[in-house]
Amino acid sequence: MAAAAPPPPPTPAPSAPTGLPDSDSTPVGHPLFSRIRLATPLDVPHIQKLIHQMAILEKLTHLFTATESDLASNLFKSTPFHSFTIFLLEVSSRPFEKDSNLHSQNFTPIERIINLDHSLIDPEAETFRNGINGDAVAAGFVLFFPNYSTFLGKPGFYVEDLFVRECYRRKGLGKMLLSAVVSQAVKMGYGRVEWVVLDWNVNAIKFYEEMGANVLPEWRICRITGPALEAYRDAI
Amino acid sequence: MAAAAPPPPPTPAPSAPTGLPDSDSTPVGHPLFSRIRLATPLDVPHIQKLIHQMAILEKLTHLFTATESDLASNLFKSTPFHSFTIFLLEVSSRPFEKDSNLHSQNFTPIERIINLDHSLIDPEAETFRNGINGDAVAAGFVLFFPNYSTFLGKPGFYVEDLFVRECYRRKGLGKMLLSAVVSQAVKMGYGRVEWVVLDWNVNAIKFYEEMGANVLPEWRICRITGPALEAYRDAI
Repeated sequence: MAAAAPPPPPTPAPSAPTGLPDSDSTPVGHPLFSRIRLATPLDVPHIQKLIHQMAILEKLTHLFTATESDLASNLFKSTPFHSFTIFLLEVSSRPFEKDSNLHSQNFTPIERIINLDHSLIDPEAETFRNGINGDAVAAGFVLFFPNYSTFLGKPGFYVEDLFVRECYRRKGLGKMLLSAVVSQAVKMGYGRVEWVVLDWNVNAIKFYEEMGANVLPEWRICRITGPALEAYRDAI
Repeated sequence: MAAAAPPPPPTPAPSAPTGLPDSDSTPVGHPLFSRIRLATPLDVPHIQKLIHQMAILEKLTHLFTATESDLASNLFKSTPFHSFTIFLLEVSSRPFEKDSNLHSQNFTPIERIINLDHSLIDPEAETFRNGINGDAVAAGFVLFFPNYSTFLGKPGFYVEDLFVRECYRRKGLGKMLLSAVVSQAVKMGYGRVEWVVLDWNVNAIKFYEEMGANVLPEWRICRITGPALEAYRDAI
């Protein structure tokens, strides 16, 4: 569906230092190490489960049919950012190990430390564990792809999905994911970032407006799908 | 902007025969030969003017900044249908000459004959004349690109712009352009075609619904652009 997962309500950006701590600045309390990186085909099982959780949240599971095989066959087919692209959000109670495989020419992973007041229990940690970095788990994702404005004569990004698992919400991670996309758009000289929100989701709308977005009141989505789409098979 | 040009109000699909007439079925009256083909870089001057006319129609010329150079630098960079793609609509009072250059592996031009009751005067014929097929003029276009539904696990098409010049409206040409995109989506196994419409444009909404589209009432577009976008330059 669209970027429909209610994001955390507006909260101040985490004041944690950026990057990994050096030996003199080990965070106190309960640090949550977070990382945004480009997803790979190996992440498809986690991504499929995250999308399913989003469908549950949106009460739209009747529209959810995507299998791991569907996703694997359509994603990761082109250079990141030039077609469907996924940033995966991972969190860990320990610093991430350096993984040179993740530093592609296209994108350097973004790391942040969030200092929590309390330790956090993830009831689904086993399901979403990263097989390589043992302590890290997938906590959310954002899927986006280029769109095009003929008025600007420039591409932009359209954010199809933004999702953070329940136990990691309200910690600035949704903002971190969306900021990563907007920042990438600026970096590429793109003109816009767009997504959609449900009109009754006032928390989400407030959150997005505080991030600098305008909500356009007059436009409505038109969609042809299912049998209505199929009816065009021999139309031309 | 979006697919905002008010399309012709609902009219029956033209009952003209498909394809070019053979010698025994030369249309009577005032035939308008129409053709949809993939646009090429040579079409950029016409496309830029068509977009400008759309901006005027939408009273959004203050948002229109795209130059021919902007368009040329961003379009036609990948295989048709896998990124930003333009179908150009051309019309002529004479049959189109066969042009093997237009028959790419990706798309065979679509031709239709529309029988008009009266001859048609195009006050901008000189501006939009095709330099190769002397009598043909550019009459409209549709710009679309792939989007992705995580629920379906399939790509679809998003229609950014659909435009037909004023003197060619209400003849089924807008429907022909949109049908060409939907038909292409079916052919590629895609799951949806989407676009947006202004909520007060009741003629357009009725037209789209008659073409099989659902108008989704609850979703609103969020957009970050301009200085708000630029503010993310050093955000990450």
